[in-house]
Amino acid sequence: MTDSFKLVGAVSGFPEYLPKQQRGFAEAVARVQAVYEAFGFTPLETAAVERAETLLAKGIEAKEVYGLRRMAAEGSEGDKDIALRFDLTVPLARYVVQNQNELVFPFRRYQVQPVWRGERAQAGRYRQFYQFDIDTIGDGALPLAADAEVLAAGAKALQALEVGDFVLRVNNRKLLAGLLRWAGFAGDDQTMAIKLIDDAEKVGWEKTEAALAALGSKLSGPLVQVLRAKEPLRVLQEVELDEEGRAGLTELQQVLALAKGMGTAETNIRADLTIARGLDYYTGTVVETRLAAAPELGSIMSGGRYDNLAANLGKKPMPGVGISIGISRLCSWLLAQEPYASMAASPAAVLLACQDETLLPHYATVAQQLRAAGVKLEQTFGGKLATQLKNADKKGLRYALIIGEQEAANGTATLKDFANGTQEVLPLDEVAKRVA
Amino acid sequence: MTDSFKLVGAVSGFPEYLPKQQRGFAEAVARVQAVYEAFGFTPLETAAVERAETLLAKGIEAKEVYGLRRMAAEGSEGDKDIALRFDLTVPLARYVVQNQNELVFPFRRYQVQPVWRGERAQAGRYRQFYQFDIDTIGDGALPLAADAEVLAAGAKALQALEVGDFVLRVNNRKLLAGLLRWAGFAGDDQTMAIKLIDDAEKVGWEKTEAALAALGSKLSGPLVQVLRAKEPLRVLQEVELDEEGRAGLTELQQVLALAKGMGTAETNIRADLTIARGLDYYTGTVVETRLAAAPELGSIMSGGRYDNLAANLGKKPMPGVGISIGISRLCSWLLAQEPYASMAASPAAVLLACQDETLLPHYATVAQQLRAAGVKLEQTFGGKLATQLKNADKKGLRYALIIGEQEAANGTATLKDFANGTQEVLPLDEVAKRVA
Repeated sequence: MTDSFKLVGAVSGFPEYLPKQQRGFAEAVARVQAVYEAFGFTPLETAAVERAETLLAKGIEAKEVYGLRRMAAEGSEGDKDIALRFDLTVPLARYVVQNQNELVFPFRRYQVQPVWRGERAQAGRYRQFYQFDIDTIGDGALPLAADAEVLAAGAKALQALEVGDFVLRVNNRKLLAGLLRWAGFAGDDQTMAIKLIDDAEKVGWEKTEAALAALGSKLSGPLVQVLRAKEPLRVLQEVELDEEGRAGLTELQQVLALAKGMGTAETNIRADLTIARGLDYYTGTVVETRLAAAPELGSIMSGGRYDNLAANLGKKPMPGVGISIGISRLCSWLLAQEPYASMAASPAAVLLACQDETLLPHYATVAQQLRAAGVKLEQTFGGKLATQLKNADKKGLRYALIIGEQEAANGTATLKDFANGTQEVLPLDEVAKRVA
Repeated sequence: MTDSFKLVGAVSGFPEYLPKQQRGFAEAVARVQAVYEAFGFTPLETAAVERAETLLAKGIEAKEVYGLRRMAAEGSEGDKDIALRFDLTVPLARYVVQNQNELVFPFRRYQVQPVWRGERAQAGRYRQFYQFDIDTIGDGALPLAADAEVLAAGAKALQALEVGDFVLRVNNRKLLAGLLRWAGFAGDDQTMAIKLIDDAEKVGWEKTEAALAALGSKLSGPLVQVLRAKEPLRVLQEVELDEEGRAGLTELQQVLALAKGMGTAETNIRADLTIARGLDYYTGTVVETRLAAAPELGSIMSGGRYDNLAANLGKKPMPGVGISIGISRLCSWLLAQEPYASMAASPAAVLLACQDETLLPHYATVAQQLRAAGVKLEQTFGGKLATQLKNADKKGLRYALIIGEQEAANGTATLKDFANGTQEVLPLDEVAKRVA
């Protein structure tokens, strides 16, 4: 993870933003949120904690989970075995099962919250970071078009973020399973092969091919050729897939076509058979996303279809599909780009300075009038005028309003524009218009 | 705490909202945020964890603090003794000291985040809840008007929330200390007396008067009479205060006058000498806030001036003043009131139903056009039309758009209005205007 600016925190691995970055992060969140609300996803926040058994049942490693304990034993009865959430998907599955009689399906929610992971303390490894997820959960059945929709919504969100060129690399687990069976992998070997393919970009394809051969495939060479083909959908026509594999291929083709129909540009989405996703619970569509300008971030938006996620928690099948933006990771690069990089450290546009403390009642009236007219305004209440102005400029406020005895008496103010260094005396009722 | 609706969660004491309530909560947060940004407060989020020693140094009881430990020892080196934040004030003090060379003063931030407290598991006692704080931190000095400003901003936030009638009950710690010295309390006895007064509304004033007498005051009767006087500022004229007490009285009078000048209505703010605030770090202004419609909530907005909060963390004095809305507690009542109670469970205004799956490409085009025109729109992709419509109505969507083969061919759509039960056939390009 690249950190193009200072990130600090009380504890290593738990980063915090300075005000300017915090406002950039808030802007990024607001842009994604606006897109997801336009698609009818509703906000959800889950509690920071889950039962430890819920988290560990999902195959998450215990050493990566933060458990909670009172700092003193007294009063701690009844809160054993709770732990901080590790992702937003397990809490969603638990929430949906728990509230299935209250929720209306398809249940569509967005969720932007921190998750906590017991990572090794090292540069770029965060123990707290935000994810921004959407998921659509069906009640018994969920059409394939729902897969296309989360891809299209995710692509739209990235556009709204102004991340530049990006590609959603889409695959299908059924197709991948068919391909792996064609190459001689079944059962546990197939699970292993999926993990090898998932790691290939990290370790290199030569090593992966050797590992696939060592795992027992006589077709590891042709398999890797098919997986890495520039036009995989064409190459696949020459592969004899079994029925499930063919069904997966059809799904992949349909999902791509539907997502494009929903507005995703040809250049922003393509089939990529090398996308495997490590997690067990995916059953169909899988996706990862790479930025052209920052490939070193890895996949900044990932997800897929899971038909059985809540199966061991609830009674009826609840198929779902979702996509997750690693928004903290993305922002480690994004906030150094425009328009985020030039954001001010304060939301205020105007400083109302204090030139004369006896005029505080007049300043109070002026501040109220300007805020009522929609102006975001910070007031200072004392100190040297030069310091007040210098600090307002540092915070990124565009204007300062200076009112002395004379101006107060005749209903005017001096408006200083930090951007171009000018200042002019204006009637008070023109100030709001000027700074709008 | 009254819960006028179902609040559930994976773990007792860690509540979660259903979608409709979640949207109400988000609306409440957005309203407060808009007010605080208009006053030039900038957003801040701190990490969920602090060093345990930082929390415990502030006199917080160890049993109320949640420490973190990995669920497995392996890989946990270097993250001992970290704990979840208990409030937003201690993290702010730590953040300001840590980043004092990067921040511009006065530093003004708002922060709305959950805090965690190891409360006993019982009805209405939450172990996770949100606070919504503003604070202004000065660098060396901070004028008294900053106190008035946080009161005025807080009052404005409550108005924006539409909480009905409320009263900010303002006191001053210097004044209270002077009064207590007049009544014979000094040193540790004074600290004890402040805690007794802080508890008085809970235990009743008769018991408090007796406890004050038992603590050694011969003037416990007159003291309680002054504290509880209907017009305390008038009654105080008859009390012989020492210099600090008189200074506190002057501050209190000035803060009230300034806050009113800043727009706080006479009916929304008054002096109340019974307000003590339990926390040690307050040094001047203290405030609690009671709602007329829900006094059982206790104080839903509290805070005050602290001149020495960061003193043991940093080198130079950083006086601050802040006010905190207990927004989870407030929402336990507020979300059952209008306009929150009638909010929909979805942000979408329109369902674009799926009457005919072969028309999915046409639906995709329609959805894009409507969203581009600013319409928040949810799509369904299959299932019985009647079920699609019923569920959209349940989610609180106002309209459904139904397009069959005929309508698709001639560029029209049937618009169903759930609110009044009507439906009409419209040209597609009129739909956006109609649902706007």
